[in-house]
Amino acid sequence: MTTQRIADILRTGQPDESVKVQGWVRTKRELKDFTFVEVNDGSSMANLQVVLNADLPNYAEIIKQMNTGASVEIDGVLVASPAKGQRIEVKASAMQVYGDADAETYPLQKKRHSFEFLRTIGHLRSRTNTFGAVFRVRNACARAIHQFFQERGFLWIHTPIISASDCEGAGEMFTVTGFNLNNIPLTEDKKQVDYSKDFFGKQAYLTVSGQLEAEVMAMAFSNVYTFGPTFRAENSNTSRHLAEFWMIEPEMAFCDLTGDMNLAEEFLKYIFKHVMETCPEDMEFFNQRIDNSVLATADNIINNEFERVTYTDAIALLEKSNKQFEYPVKWGLDLQSEHERYLAEELFKKPTIVTDYPVEIKAFYMRLNDDEKTVAAMDILAPKIGEIIGGSQREERLDILERRINAQGLNPADYWWYLDLRRFGTVPHAGFGLGFERLVQFMTGMANIRDVIPFPRAPQTVEF
Amino acid sequence: MTTQRIADILRTGQPDESVKVQGWVRTKRELKDFTFVEVNDGSSMANLQVVLNADLPNYAEIIKQMNTGASVEIDGVLVASPAKGQRIEVKASAMQVYGDADAETYPLQKKRHSFEFLRTIGHLRSRTNTFGAVFRVRNACARAIHQFFQERGFLWIHTPIISASDCEGAGEMFTVTGFNLNNIPLTEDKKQVDYSKDFFGKQAYLTVSGQLEAEVMAMAFSNVYTFGPTFRAENSNTSRHLAEFWMIEPEMAFCDLTGDMNLAEEFLKYIFKHVMETCPEDMEFFNQRIDNSVLATADNIINNEFERVTYTDAIALLEKSNKQFEYPVKWGLDLQSEHERYLAEELFKKPTIVTDYPVEIKAFYMRLNDDEKTVAAMDILAPKIGEIIGGSQREERLDILERRINAQGLNPADYWWYLDLRRFGTVPHAGFGLGFERLVQFMTGMANIRDVIPFPRAPQTVEF
Repeated sequence: MTTQRIADILRTGQPDESVKVQGWVRTKRELKDFTFVEVNDGSSMANLQVVLNADLPNYAEIIKQMNTGASVEIDGVLVASPAKGQRIEVKASAMQVYGDADAETYPLQKKRHSFEFLRTIGHLRSRTNTFGAVFRVRNACARAIHQFFQERGFLWIHTPIISASDCEGAGEMFTVTGFNLNNIPLTEDKKQVDYSKDFFGKQAYLTVSGQLEAEVMAMAFSNVYTFGPTFRAENSNTSRHLAEFWMIEPEMAFCDLTGDMNLAEEFLKYIFKHVMETCPEDMEFFNQRIDNSVLATADNIINNEFERVTYTDAIALLEKSNKQFEYPVKWGLDLQSEHERYLAEELFKKPTIVTDYPVEIKAFYMRLNDDEKTVAAMDILAPKIGEIIGGSQREERLDILERRINAQGLNPADYWWYLDLRRFGTVPHAGFGLGFERLVQFMTGMANIRDVIPFPRAPQTVEF
Repeated sequence: MTTQRIADILRTGQPDESVKVQGWVRTKRELKDFTFVEVNDGSSMANLQVVLNADLPNYAEIIKQMNTGASVEIDGVLVASPAKGQRIEVKASAMQVYGDADAETYPLQKKRHSFEFLRTIGHLRSRTNTFGAVFRVRNACARAIHQFFQERGFLWIHTPIISASDCEGAGEMFTVTGFNLNNIPLTEDKKQVDYSKDFFGKQAYLTVSGQLEAEVMAMAFSNVYTFGPTFRAENSNTSRHLAEFWMIEPEMAFCDLTGDMNLAEEFLKYIFKHVMETCPEDMEFFNQRIDNSVLATADNIINNEFERVTYTDAIALLEKSNKQFEYPVKWGLDLQSEHERYLAEELFKKPTIVTDYPVEIKAFYMRLNDDEKTVAAMDILAPKIGEIIGGSQREERLDILERRINAQGLNPADYWWYLDLRRFGTVPHAGFGLGFERLVQFMTGMANIRDVIPFPRAPQTVEF
């Protein structure tokens, strides 16, 4: 008989059905004539309770091996459970231990462990309730993202990971090389690294964004999105930074800033809704154990029409607020986290889209507005969360784009292909980006971003 | 009125419906009283024919801009098309050119271009019929892969891109560093690079496989899969190698080699079927223009039960074949491409799974069979294609795994966390891997793997 997933048994299993389950022992409680074993296979937060009667063959021997962490297979029949909090349990007719887990040495005993400690055993931490929930929610988010775009005819495109140019001018990039660092070829004058001898024939980096390449693809397929890894060599040892993280970057041809905002709002609502529907137990767990505003935040995002306000109006509102901010509020300065939180949490009390930022504080590719002082950019700020999405309409006019590249001290020659998109069949277009781990962090309430990615990379951190 | 996708109009549009379309001009044919314009928005291979009457306002001026490559918006009404090969066309009531494309300088004129030339304009090639079809099929493959696994309760997991160990012992890895290569810190004796001063505090690489980390996750969630980029710093300038490519690696707990083969067979059939159903025009195009065996290959994979044969039997069959092979056939030697093709194309004439290879020619993590001479590995060979999937049951027994790591001259200490999976709740488990670009290449018949990924990376190749 084939194995059933515990999530399915708990949801739809009926008394008298025969079942086979395979999973890992979470706890065991031995009584005189029988033993209760809680088994988990990762398909759900809840365990399946298995009742092993003492008259089973080899009972004593097998029970001895059924420690926390042991892998087991159980055949049995479902019975209505007399215990509180569970509808159904299994009465075992046969049982087998595949691999035990020595109670002395297995690090995951029943007691609670700190997240710091669990990070040192990244190869085992997914077996805990918290990390089980995190990675199920992470998967649900990822699935919803693909579904959202595919349903709307967007193509998933894979932009390059290894790149020869710092296209966003974001700096802080990792170098990728085929050189043996102990023996790097130098140019003839022995003064410089001779990159012409490297694998790619020039200096290469890990990408910081797939946006410019996504624009290439949008100019052929109209609507596309990226969902892939990006990198920052920033030496930031914080709870919000990773050196390696996944980003989602949709790009839409024939789309202006309003279309961009509409899609982003629809997108966030869709993802939160999908996760609430598919992982209700996990979300409940986060709300109870990790951050008691998690469900309210999701509800706020799903059920409110987002507020939309220009940067200029936002500055005026901040000035009128009579709040004491740490950082100055002045037209032309970027909004700080405290300002963003005031707008979304205190003033509007719902997700807020700030648009039309001063040209000086935004990237060269954002479309210049007619006032020539602002660009068609937008940031989505969410209560308790802060900035969750950043996007813009892109500058589609060749002359203005060239001017802006020059103004930022960049070399237009480096952007020949990006400029070609404006030379040949240019169209109004727009897109946005969001960091996948930030999204999962916000959704789950997990305080440290290293706890929402299976194997985090950060300064001095490259284990597993 | 909102824009409709051309694919949808061509499929379901009815006469007298009002439509708005946005896309790029593929061709224009001016007659005396009207002009035919073929418009494409990337949603389908087929263009939408638009009829522009000379009495439209600004007709002469707009028609002049409507060159190949120009971006346009058309409002109009659908009418039954009198032309051959199309059901429906648009009679325009208004038209607008967003961006023109100078006929003298736009590289994509109507004539056919070589794939070599198109690789030099990677930022424009997606606007051709062939690359349009390639990237729609690529997306359909990717979508089918996620759907296949998600429907079966597998979690998509993101294994690390930056890794500190060559876990497969595959060699040929790219180094990732935060160092400025012109100024690398050395150890005190000035003889070695001081990696303790690098971003990660040790030497780091780009991953060659996510398998070992996928095993970690399978030991918590039972069924998982990766779908992410992997890298090889191999100096192979061939039509089948990329330095950066995407891999899919499912990993299943409580699964043996038979379960692994069953899933892989089901998987391939599912992907090919999905693509045939969702991209019939594109597949037809490949069959007509690129490789006339593409549809037969898909049919063969979808409709045949795969042959299963052990390596030992395969060697005997090759020896009996009386074929003159270039490479020797002998138990203990790896199968060469010519041997694989003989088995799948000439002998069985259908996809063939070869199992149980000699232990000496396979990786340390593959499960040792009871004969102690072979391992529970499997390769799927497809007619016209060769090896498309490689997989195995993994060695779940701690003592044997340690022995095999030592036998391959590797250091068990480097695999402490991988070995822990066998110490704590080990289970029989299995998985397989396939290169995504190889799959797309095989599906489309494209001869060069650089033509199935948007921006290929290879020796001396890192443009865009």
